Amino acid sequence: MTRRLSPGVTLVLGGARSGKSRFAEALVASSGREPVYVATATAIDAEMVARIARHRQRRGAGWRTVEAPVDLAGALAREDGAGRAVLVDCLTLWVSNLMMEEADIAQAGERLAATLSAMRAPVVLVANEVGLGIVPDNALARSFRDHAGTLNQAVAGLARTVYLVAAGLPLALKEDHDR
Amino acid sequence: MTRRLSPGVTLVLGGARSGKSRFAEALVASSGREPVYVATATAIDAEMVARIARHRQRRGAGWRTVEAPVDLAGALAREDGAGRAVLVDCLTLWVSNLMMEEADIAQAGERLAATLSAMRAPVVLVANEVGLGIVPDNALARSFRDHAGTLNQAVAGLARTVYLVAAGLPLALKEDHDR
Amino acid sequence: MTRRLSPGVTLVLGGARSGKSRFAEALVASSGREPVYVATATAIDAEMVARIARHRQRRGAGWRTVEAPVDLAGALAREDGAGRAVLVDCLTLWVSNLMMEEADIAQAGERLAATLSAMRAPVVLVANEVGLGIVPDNALARSFRDHAGTLNQAVAGLARTVYLVAAGLPLALKEDHDR
Repeated sequence: MTRRLSPGVTLVLGGARSGKSRFAEALVASSGREPVYVATATAIDAEMVARIARHRQRRGAGWRTVEAPVDLAGALAREDGAGRAVLVDCLTLWVSNLMMEEADIAQAGERLAATLSAMRAPVVLVANEVGLGIVPDNALARSFRDHAGTLNQAVAGLARTVYLVAAGLPLALKEDHDR
Repeated sequence: MTRRLSPGVTLVLGGARSGKSRFAEALVASSGREPVYVATATAIDAEMVARIARHRQRRGAGWRTVEAPVDLAGALAREDGAGRAVLVDCLTLWVSNLMMEEADIAQAGERLAATLSAMRAPVVLVANEVGLGIVPDNALARSFRDHAGTLNQAVAGLARTVYLVAAGLPLALKEDHDR
Repeated sequence: MTRRLSPGVTLVLGGARSGKSRFAEALVASSGREPVYVATATAIDAEMVARIARHRQRRGAGWRTVEAPVDLAGALAREDGAGRAVLVDCLTLWVSNLMMEEADIAQAGERLAATLSAMRAPVVLVANEVGLGIVPDNALARSFRDHAGTLNQAVAGLARTVYLVAAGLPLALKEDHDR
């Protein structure tokens, strides 16, 4: 069940409480590279504050943490470096942040894709799969679901490795067999 | 990652914005057969109109489109033909249409299964997996979820090939290795 | 597609109406052992009464049924036996029952894990994956989703075999290749 971090982009998909963040952290930590944590979460309420603190404690002291709730592409470009490995947690919260800012999500997605494709450091991106329940009642939730799914497809398309995590167990949807 | 259209029935399961329709279209288009698109969607609101137009544009001019919001088995029987390949998009909307008509869904499902089993042309059916979120509050949504899941199981049972699509990537749940 | 019951703990994950219970029952029934059904459901409303009756009819007369809406670890310890195979249906309802009782769910989960690890009889546990939809509006549903996901991870961690069932078709997430 041990997996190695592949070069290039890795996407880790999963549901809430699926163990996707823990799995992604282990991938990055096992690489022996200097780990950089790019957080898209912002401490907007007590639930979020508790979750951020729990994740930070789990990762331990070796990680450098960078906050990038909106300008994710910019943060990735700044943190790119030969001996590093970067973890983005998570893409889906980033979509939510962009929607709150009324940003152009398609354009932001294209800029992210271009940045990811140009990076030297391996990057692991965590994302939620949110489309497997009943169609939400409200239009905003449907729109969020559409944006999140579209972005997941775009990142999965350029990624060399894609995992779906359920109950802490990874399932490879795409694997780079040539490495 | 390239897949070939198998003979008989193929079921393509996935969430909202998972890339399931695009994957199913590519399967049918790659077969070299005359592609027939059986649409269960009806243009009931602006969101639906936009989505139908987008899908139609993506498929391109080579496809013949047939609307079958309720009588899906009848449309399939009419469109069956030696040189054709049929795409049904999607089963889950069909369940929703049957519920709005207060039709006998179990009976309609059995008639669909009988029709599918008798067809000569390969058929690809797209369906949503809607049971992986929190239990919905209202009884109608729970009933819809039950009907959709039961139909997915029935079609998966008779299908020769079943894929689950996530982030545009197919995962084979059932594959016809004898073909 | 036929699977054999493995020794130790097997976790069967799936959505609503995914065919997970039917698959788990078939695993236990095929073992040739005396089947014990540990039900966490309680007949709190008409929907539940109908569902329990339907499941009981499907299993048939060979099964002994034990109700364990809250004290699941106790029931498992009592039903452990050399020639038996035990099915728990389902873990997620048990979490829901514990929440209604305002029980200490972390503690109950640890006790369950310790009991499972000590059992001689093979045990199959059915659980819902509920984290793949949109984030629920209300805090109670989010808390339920967190508890259910955390428990699924814990049981998957100690299980020798884990399946994800979709449309009646099992996908192995973890398999004991050494047996």
